[in-house]
Amino acid sequence: MIAGFFFLIFFTEENNNGNCGYNDVVKFLNLKKDNDKYTLTRPVKNYNTVTEVLHLMKVFGILDMVKTEQIFISYIWVFLRWKNEHISWNPKEFCGLESITIPTELLWMPDLIIEEMTEKDKATTNPFLTIYSNGNVSFRNDHVVVSTCKMNVYKFPFDSQSCNLSFKSMTHTPREINLKTLENDKVITRWSKDLIETQDEWEFLDITVNNQTSDLDRFQSMLVYTITMKRRSVLYIANFILPILFFLILDLVSFLISDSGGEKLSFKVTVLLAVTVMQLILNDILPSSSDKVPLIALYCIGVFTLMMLSLLESILVMHLIDKDSATQNNKTDGDQSLSE
Amino acid sequence: MIAGFFFLIFFTEENNNGNCGYNDVVKFLNLKKDNDKYTLTRPVKNYNTVTEVLHLMKVFGILDMVKTEQIFISYIWVFLRWKNEHISWNPKEFCGLESITIPTELLWMPDLIIEEMTEKDKATTNPFLTIYSNGNVSFRNDHVVVSTCKMNVYKFPFDSQSCNLSFKSMTHTPREINLKTLENDKVITRWSKDLIETQDEWEFLDITVNNQTSDLDRFQSMLVYTITMKRRSVLYIANFILPILFFLILDLVSFLISDSGGEKLSFKVTVLLAVTVMQLILNDILPSSSDKVPLIALYCIGVFTLMMLSLLESILVMHLIDKDSATQNNKTDGDQSLSE
Amino acid sequence: MIAGFFFLIFFTEENNNGNCGYNDVVKFLNLKKDNDKYTLTRPVKNYNTVTEVLHLMKVFGILDMVKTEQIFISYIWVFLRWKNEHISWNPKEFCGLESITIPTELLWMPDLIIEEMTEKDKATTNPFLTIYSNGNVSFRNDHVVVSTCKMNVYKFPFDSQSCNLSFKSMTHTPREINLKTLENDKVITRWSKDLIETQDEWEFLDITVNNQTSDLDRFQSMLVYTITMKRRSVLYIANFILPILFFLILDLVSFLISDSGGEKLSFKVTVLLAVTVMQLILNDILPSSSDKVPLIALYCIGVFTLMMLSLLESILVMHLIDKDSATQNNKTDGDQSLSE
Amino acid sequence: MIAGFFFLIFFTEENNNGNCGYNDVVKFLNLKKDNDKYTLTRPVKNYNTVTEVLHLMKVFGILDMVKTEQIFISYIWVFLRWKNEHISWNPKEFCGLESITIPTELLWMPDLIIEEMTEKDKATTNPFLTIYSNGNVSFRNDHVVVSTCKMNVYKFPFDSQSCNLSFKSMTHTPREINLKTLENDKVITRWSKDLIETQDEWEFLDITVNNQTSDLDRFQSMLVYTITMKRRSVLYIANFILPILFFLILDLVSFLISDSGGEKLSFKVTVLLAVTVMQLILNDILPSSSDKVPLIALYCIGVFTLMMLSLLESILVMHLIDKDSATQNNKTDGDQSLSE
Amino acid sequence: MIAGFFFLIFFTEENNNGNCGYNDVVKFLNLKKDNDKYTLTRPVKNYNTVTEVLHLMKVFGILDMVKTEQIFISYIWVFLRWKNEHISWNPKEFCGLESITIPTELLWMPDLIIEEMTEKDKATTNPFLTIYSNGNVSFRNDHVVVSTCKMNVYKFPFDSQSCNLSFKSMTHTPREINLKTLENDKVITRWSKDLIETQDEWEFLDITVNNQTSDLDRFQSMLVYTITMKRRSVLYIANFILPILFFLILDLVSFLISDSGGEKLSFKVTVLLAVTVMQLILNDILPSSSDKVPLIALYCIGVFTLMMLSLLESILVMHLIDKDSATQNNKTDGDQSLSE
Repeated sequence: MIAGFFFLIFFTEENNNGNCGYNDVVKFLNLKKDNDKYTLTRPVKNYNTVTEVLHLMKVFGILDMVKTEQIFISYIWVFLRWKNEHISWNPKEFCGLESITIPTELLWMPDLIIEEMTEKDKATTNPFLTIYSNGNVSFRNDHVVVSTCKMNVYKFPFDSQSCNLSFKSMTHTPREINLKTLENDKVITRWSKDLIETQDEWEFLDITVNNQTSDLDRFQSMLVYTITMKRRSVLYIANFILPILFFLILDLVSFLISDSGGEKLSFKVTVLLAVTVMQLILNDILPSSSDKVPLIALYCIGVFTLMMLSLLESILVMHLIDKDSATQNNKTDGDQSLSE
Repeated sequence: MIAGFFFLIFFTEENNNGNCGYNDVVKFLNLKKDNDKYTLTRPVKNYNTVTEVLHLMKVFGILDMVKTEQIFISYIWVFLRWKNEHISWNPKEFCGLESITIPTELLWMPDLIIEEMTEKDKATTNPFLTIYSNGNVSFRNDHVVVSTCKMNVYKFPFDSQSCNLSFKSMTHTPREINLKTLENDKVITRWSKDLIETQDEWEFLDITVNNQTSDLDRFQSMLVYTITMKRRSVLYIANFILPILFFLILDLVSFLISDSGGEKLSFKVTVLLAVTVMQLILNDILPSSSDKVPLIALYCIGVFTLMMLSLLESILVMHLIDKDSATQNNKTDGDQSLSE
Repeated sequence: MIAGFFFLIFFTEENNNGNCGYNDVVKFLNLKKDNDKYTLTRPVKNYNTVTEVLHLMKVFGILDMVKTEQIFISYIWVFLRWKNEHISWNPKEFCGLESITIPTELLWMPDLIIEEMTEKDKATTNPFLTIYSNGNVSFRNDHVVVSTCKMNVYKFPFDSQSCNLSFKSMTHTPREINLKTLENDKVITRWSKDLIETQDEWEFLDITVNNQTSDLDRFQSMLVYTITMKRRSVLYIANFILPILFFLILDLVSFLISDSGGEKLSFKVTVLLAVTVMQLILNDILPSSSDKVPLIALYCIGVFTLMMLSLLESILVMHLIDKDSATQNNKTDGDQSLSE
Repeated sequence: MIAGFFFLIFFTEENNNGNCGYNDVVKFLNLKKDNDKYTLTRPVKNYNTVTEVLHLMKVFGILDMVKTEQIFISYIWVFLRWKNEHISWNPKEFCGLESITIPTELLWMPDLIIEEMTEKDKATTNPFLTIYSNGNVSFRNDHVVVSTCKMNVYKFPFDSQSCNLSFKSMTHTPREINLKTLENDKVITRWSKDLIETQDEWEFLDITVNNQTSDLDRFQSMLVYTITMKRRSVLYIANFILPILFFLILDLVSFLISDSGGEKLSFKVTVLLAVTVMQLILNDILPSSSDKVPLIALYCIGVFTLMMLSLLESILVMHLIDKDSATQNNKTDGDQSLSE
Repeated sequence: MIAGFFFLIFFTEENNNGNCGYNDVVKFLNLKKDNDKYTLTRPVKNYNTVTEVLHLMKVFGILDMVKTEQIFISYIWVFLRWKNEHISWNPKEFCGLESITIPTELLWMPDLIIEEMTEKDKATTNPFLTIYSNGNVSFRNDHVVVSTCKMNVYKFPFDSQSCNLSFKSMTHTPREINLKTLENDKVITRWSKDLIETQDEWEFLDITVNNQTSDLDRFQSMLVYTITMKRRSVLYIANFILPILFFLILDLVSFLISDSGGEKLSFKVTVLLAVTVMQLILNDILPSSSDKVPLIALYCIGVFTLMMLSLLESILVMHLIDKDSATQNNKTDGDQSLSE
């Protein structure tokens, strides 16, 4: 009796707010940390109902692109919305309250992953999601994604690269979870262009979205975002390509130096040494992964070969001149001895 | 009955302290690890009440600034204060106790993040917050923030950089959480100047605070702190700019060397080789991200070009002298044969 | 009474779905986060029953292979299936529902590890597994595996490497957990060849599977996948082997330069210097772990020795010529003085 | 009744040990994982009681000191002791048991942090603490501390550095937690000298302890340990300072080479090139953070300038000799033509 | 009544297995995740009983040894066995079941750490331990241990190193936990030799075990495993020592070059330049921590000094020859003028 009395008092005090608090809805829905109904299984009343997950991704930054390990690091923003059939309330009964923000651990969430991701998400995970009175659940989150990206460095440093981020459910089949994008390519590209601040050495071009099924199992619905970027090559030109070109010009001009003295050879071999030092830089900046030799390595090897050939030619010419003068000397000597 | 008796004894024993312990308030408020009322939702009685979060940031240290990846690492101290409407007690009933320090997991906390942050906080998180008898909650914490920062390295190494740290709620709209700064720019700058110990190669200039709305969703209230720093360029001058200038002077002075011997060419090409070795350092210290070629690369390329041109000129002059002397010799020979 | 009445209402409302929800099966099986029956021990009714774990691995990517530390980083996809004797339901009673996807923490899982793994899995762990009405449990997961791999770099950069990934239970004996592969070598190799996107500098050749017992304890059933790869050597040839060959040719051709002037020595020693600079690259790319000197180091040392010997020979020849001409001069002087 | 009977049996069986087990005290104190009395608040009966925390730190190793980022990594051992007023038992009633080791999560612990710490503790945290019958609690733990340290590298590599480790409570005021050191400077220094095994390139000198209040808030009691170290400079001398000195000597001695031939210039410029190569090492070992140019950079720049000036002088002298001989030649020519 | 009836049915169904399941023993022992009896304190009935922990370690791999930071990374396998006095059952009552594998969180475990460990264990932790009917508990686990190791690099690269791994309890005194090794040195060495696959550049020699008390507190029982290894120096010889020796030979042979021309000086200074380039490699491979200069640095400095002295001598000789010929010329001139 007394307990009931206190309960009444408590109830009354709580109701002073007129059911306008978040806690009222939470109590109505019986949301608790250990309520297995909300957390264990996909929130549908009939298992044949497909959970449609609306998905939106914006690229916030291109943080890095590690050539040598074919790694692409991006900073993205993801928005998800799906229907939870266990959630529903009448906003009118709660002072018009239409949405509540609650901790994510209270509800089931789709097990979306990015197939290309090779490291755990480095960004802080959003601890909250928002539920709406009609049962919709929305979740927005930032991700720093370290993903693999097959790069083609043949045209380095004048190359463009396309990297995929493939969102899919880890376990659920398309009959359970179906992924759909909220917006089309153009809108996403425009938004991302506005947002992107840091692009490292890469210039963001565009994003496209495709609905596919996973190659791995052919079991999951998959949303593939393809990000296309262009490398900014201006520094590679200034630091590597131009100096080597300069050395090539020097080598060519060195043909003007007379063959008689030793300075021509010494000049040419020093220029060759300078190109060798530049190759230390090439070894630093070039990925080692490609099947074909990149054009820049060919360029370097080409300059190298040209300079070596010109050196060989110089040595040969000098050798011939030497021999010639030797025979001439001999002849002259012969002539002299003859004339004598 | 017996249970009640023991309860009485227990109650009496506890009350020996005269309600002066923290536990008394904790019991009064019914604070527990599994009390969903305190942890699940924003602590307002009417959902239309906005939670005002007062915010203060001091910069404790500028740890690093990674040019090549446009990353800014800072060590900051953050103070937050907001109102929890579920908390309130009369200090007089508890021996004048006005504040308690309790574990953070007992209460809802605003989901503030730093938009630019690309790695999880590396500092130890404060496990405690403080509640006051009037319902105020205060929380202070240290953060080691790894954030992206768009740098302009055009004037490197004489550049200044401004990096933003944008605090915002991850999920809550401005009608739910409203961020305000506790102090103005001047006070924060002064405090930070006093505090900053390690500044790496950067000299801290000032901080400004701005209230904005997020670019990402236009949904969240955002507090943008802008930290401005100046690079200490003295070592770059000593290690890179001066030596290259020296080499340029050497190259110019080398015009005094007579063109006849081979030593002029050999001298100049060795100086060029030394500049090439310096370019290994440039490749090390220069970010590869910029759109425009930085001045220092232009400087390096300029010196390079000047030295190459002077080399070309030398070769040409030597070639012409050679030719000239050859024709003179021919002429002399002709004269001689003529005179003979 | 009233409680019972509400319960009835609740029960009726729930049953409106006709037992077609996942929650109905979950309740039937009494699956809860704290149900020790499901989580504490191996899910067999008689302890003599062996739990057969069917295992399948596909290689999704070869991320890196750190020569200097003998580390192999791969991105794999693993599928497991085993029998849980505590789980069983009649699909007909639940509208034909045959499988449910539930959080992994609800059930016991085999404690499989990869013996060679030296860092914690970096990929996001799948939070869900699937249970079937006949008691089968299936679990699929991605792993980024950092494993040790004994490499033989003798033939570097023309080497092939074989790395093992040995799956085994950490604690259970073969009488408790027995590992079996689902498919044979050919199928796994074909699948992996289709899947592999990034191969870094490595070309994937094939996978083989073997059933072994662990070397460590001889206690556990073990499934050893051996991945064989071939290094793509084209860039090493272009960047290192070719330039050094060029320098060797230059050194050999330099014998054509006349011994009289000083340019021959100066030329040869500069070429030697260039090879020394190349050795900086070798120091960068070569692992320091091997017992035998790798062929490439022998190649480098060989070229070095040849060039040094040719230099010594040149110096000797020049010395002899000098001496010869000196004695000749002496003789001539003697002749002259004699003739005088 | 039957339950009671079983309970009696159980009770009897337990008491066979005569209250000599740890579990008896644990039960007496009602220590449980969810006992909020022990974990939520500072363990005092009256909130005005200050909790005195006795603190002791020994340095176990100086692991690293990253010059370029001003980071100091140390391995320390910390001992804490404080009073928990809720804990007390009579050892006589429990067979003389005076202390128990229990998991740390059962009790409140002071929220001590190290102010300079910029990364989470890397060492394994001690999961146990020890409680004594008089209410004392002691906790010992190892920490690998990554902390910032303002270094002065002006005298590099002959510098000494002092790094602070400031222990303080994150939230509690001096009226709540008061830090005191258990031992004086001398004892700590002596202990640490005995313990330190790895010192990297640093020689440990001494530790001093000071009681301060935090600069950050002026709210917390703080214990500042200052560790002083001396750099071992022997390798820097051997690898960098000596070779550069050698080059300077070579350059000075080169004045003995006759100005006539080209070899003097070529010699000097090659020595200058060697110093340029050494500058690659300087760029590697020198921190970029300082305000003043370090002495070693001045040394390097000084040598550089000296060598350049000597080169300029040589060129000038050669030029003047050339000119002189040219005019002399002209004169001689004039004389000859005159004499003719 | 009805509840009881269902319970009977349930009970019967469960007993169909005849008490042969693991769950039967788990229920008998009342093992649960929140059973404080098993997890809170050392599992002895009388607190005076010492818990003897039998310990066995095998080295599975030597992963890395970072010279510059004195870090030793090993991959080890550890086996522990101790007595839990609260656990005991009669196997006969459970179909002969003698051991069960259960999650580690159900039981107290000794708080063993490795004193030298400076980073958290990187390997996956074993989630299961095995309990036996007589109360024995066994636990096996893999560890990737990053530990400090005082290295003596005086003889580098021909050095051997001994690294300790000291296992001890963090909190318990020898009267509480006593560590004993299961096998002697020989057996452990033999096992480890069989197991070790990757040894990086190190050749494993042997392991010894010692029982000590901790230096840190003199409070804990400690088991010190000492691992002795030998560095494989073959690559250091090929890449560094041989080339420098070659350069020294070249320098010595250069005395054969005639002093008259400038080529001798130019040759010698270029060889010196090549040694300077090699010093870049030395700076890379040599630890900076030692008190004494390592032999290899002395070797390098020695070669350097020799080459410099030989250069100085050459310059001096050339200078004297020059002077001599000048005075001779003067004399000759004098003679000539005299004779005229």
